[in-house]
Amino acid sequence: MMEADYKSKSLCENVRLSENRDSVFIIDQTLLPYKEVYSELKSLEDFYEAIYMLRVRGAPAIGICAGYALAVLASKISCSNPDEFFSKLRSIKERLNSSRPTAVNLSKALDRVENAALSRSGQGIDAIIDAMFRESISIQAEDVEMCRRISEYGLTLVKSGDGILTHCNAGPLATSRYGTGLGPLFLGKERGYNFHVYADETRPLLQGARLTAYELNRAGIDVTVICDNMASIVMHQGKIDACFAGCDRVAANGDTANKIGTSGVAILAKHYGIPFYVFCPSSTIDFSCASGKDIVIEERSGEEIGSLFFKEKTVPDGVKCYNPAFDVTDNGLITAIVTEKGICRAPYDVSLGLLFG
Amino acid sequence: MMEADYKSKSLCENVRLSENRDSVFIIDQTLLPYKEVYSELKSLEDFYEAIYMLRVRGAPAIGICAGYALAVLASKISCSNPDEFFSKLRSIKERLNSSRPTAVNLSKALDRVENAALSRSGQGIDAIIDAMFRESISIQAEDVEMCRRISEYGLTLVKSGDGILTHCNAGPLATSRYGTGLGPLFLGKERGYNFHVYADETRPLLQGARLTAYELNRAGIDVTVICDNMASIVMHQGKIDACFAGCDRVAANGDTANKIGTSGVAILAKHYGIPFYVFCPSSTIDFSCASGKDIVIEERSGEEIGSLFFKEKTVPDGVKCYNPAFDVTDNGLITAIVTEKGICRAPYDVSLGLLFG
Repeated sequence: MMEADYKSKSLCENVRLSENRDSVFIIDQTLLPYKEVYSELKSLEDFYEAIYMLRVRGAPAIGICAGYALAVLASKISCSNPDEFFSKLRSIKERLNSSRPTAVNLSKALDRVENAALSRSGQGIDAIIDAMFRESISIQAEDVEMCRRISEYGLTLVKSGDGILTHCNAGPLATSRYGTGLGPLFLGKERGYNFHVYADETRPLLQGARLTAYELNRAGIDVTVICDNMASIVMHQGKIDACFAGCDRVAANGDTANKIGTSGVAILAKHYGIPFYVFCPSSTIDFSCASGKDIVIEERSGEEIGSLFFKEKTVPDGVKCYNPAFDVTDNGLITAIVTEKGICRAPYDVSLGLLFG
Repeated sequence: MMEADYKSKSLCENVRLSENRDSVFIIDQTLLPYKEVYSELKSLEDFYEAIYMLRVRGAPAIGICAGYALAVLASKISCSNPDEFFSKLRSIKERLNSSRPTAVNLSKALDRVENAALSRSGQGIDAIIDAMFRESISIQAEDVEMCRRISEYGLTLVKSGDGILTHCNAGPLATSRYGTGLGPLFLGKERGYNFHVYADETRPLLQGARLTAYELNRAGIDVTVICDNMASIVMHQGKIDACFAGCDRVAANGDTANKIGTSGVAILAKHYGIPFYVFCPSSTIDFSCASGKDIVIEERSGEEIGSLFFKEKTVPDGVKCYNPAFDVTDNGLITAIVTEKGICRAPYDVSLGLLFG
């Protein structure tokens, strides 16, 4: 584990292939904001444990980490012939893929890196390994580029001095480089924009307080944490010019599933006449899903609410907690959906279809 | 300290004069919901410490406790003449009054009990003490009656089976017997109503999770705790038929100051077409205050947000927290204001003036 060397950089580099390509460094998100620790992952079990325990989290970040993992571990396979190599590679891939079975970016990244290997199967181990590293580096580079494009489009929607309200975390830790929902803030900072960000703490797991505030603060962006129930007063006081949210899934009509509480922020924004923007990598648009009614909301354990980080009890014994992890924001509440290909506005069934259909 | 004997009662009796009138029992609110402990207060310093440390909290409850305290402590004064008695009484009153200098119910209750003593100053110590106990018992009895009337009016607004969303705590612990904002729920329960309550946890101090859930659960009322940012989804899912809130101050035009987050709940309720009711003892109507713009919002330490109960750190070092303790709900968002004299509806400058002007 390494501390401190990381502090010199203003943007979080959450996943990084080591110089000599025999390990991957990740910033351990379970220790934030208490400690900034880079963990070095070398063995199959190191990678499995890091993904399983959410030390690296956020679908794109998991995909990037898993892609590098497969290439690094492939380079360490000892074998006497190509068949043995591919057999061992398959078993490594299966183990990695089981670390978070529902994360689609994880299996997609592993497939890409395995396919790169298979495409060179006749060319010897060195060429195969080289192709795998190229592919895994591409996965991260593509994510960086996607985030950069979203950030560029998003930056056209705001101006220096604006107050921005954020909900949950859609920043560099969950993706790469700029992030999606926070991307315009980092890009704007590099260009001298002076934002004032109010970060909803985002109960129950406090990703806004712990992660968003951490990322913005280390980049030198003015950030103030508020409780989720303070969004109304800061809007009323004129402190907010725009709301920024990420998304987990966008239906064909623009209805958007995101972290619990997002729909409430959008309703408040509409009430106060403040624009509400969703930042959306095209991979999250699900055209097979006609509207938000088709999106199933994951319900998590009430224990997350009733015990703060499973330590301090906050709810009396015998009292139920209801803990939906996401909610759906109606497309009519969304001012614009910002993608890497451009900005979509209502009617979204038309605008999303034109860009991606 | 006593535990357990209290558990047999379904309603919280937060402040109770002992049988032989030499002490006061309070339920220690700082230990809820971890422990249900009744503390017995006997000395001046017992009472001072209990109010100062928020073991008894809620403006009406503080007033009731202080009224009893002055009578109990007066009965223990040793003196050789009436002048010495009143001099010692004044110094006790001043000490009690300094325990929460801004709580108006505290000084009002102390004035009432002192005035009861002064009105009998020619009649000997026994008559004086008797008058003081009568007055302090009246303060609690009046509060019980006020809460009962508010509860009766409130109960006409809902029906058995309704889903009710609550914010913060306006229950028996803060007042007496039924409470204000929760009063219709307890009264309805006694009459066989079957409510389904969703209690906002109410960050940062979690009065909803800790106190409202505790009170409702022990009365056998179905209660589920949610994070504040889940109010939108439970309304969207059709789980909520009405929202109930207490209030700290109501302006002449009906604008209402209450715990932070109340205005957000009211905006969501309007969006979803759900009635939003405010429960308002007449003592909280401030006709000298024309509108919510005249109400100054108390800002508390950001430490309450950044450290969960000052233990677990949730916000990175160096990041600001903004912690307004109250917000103002615009009168246009309030379906009705329920008082002990009747139910007021918009326009509130007219309806409040008719009842109380």
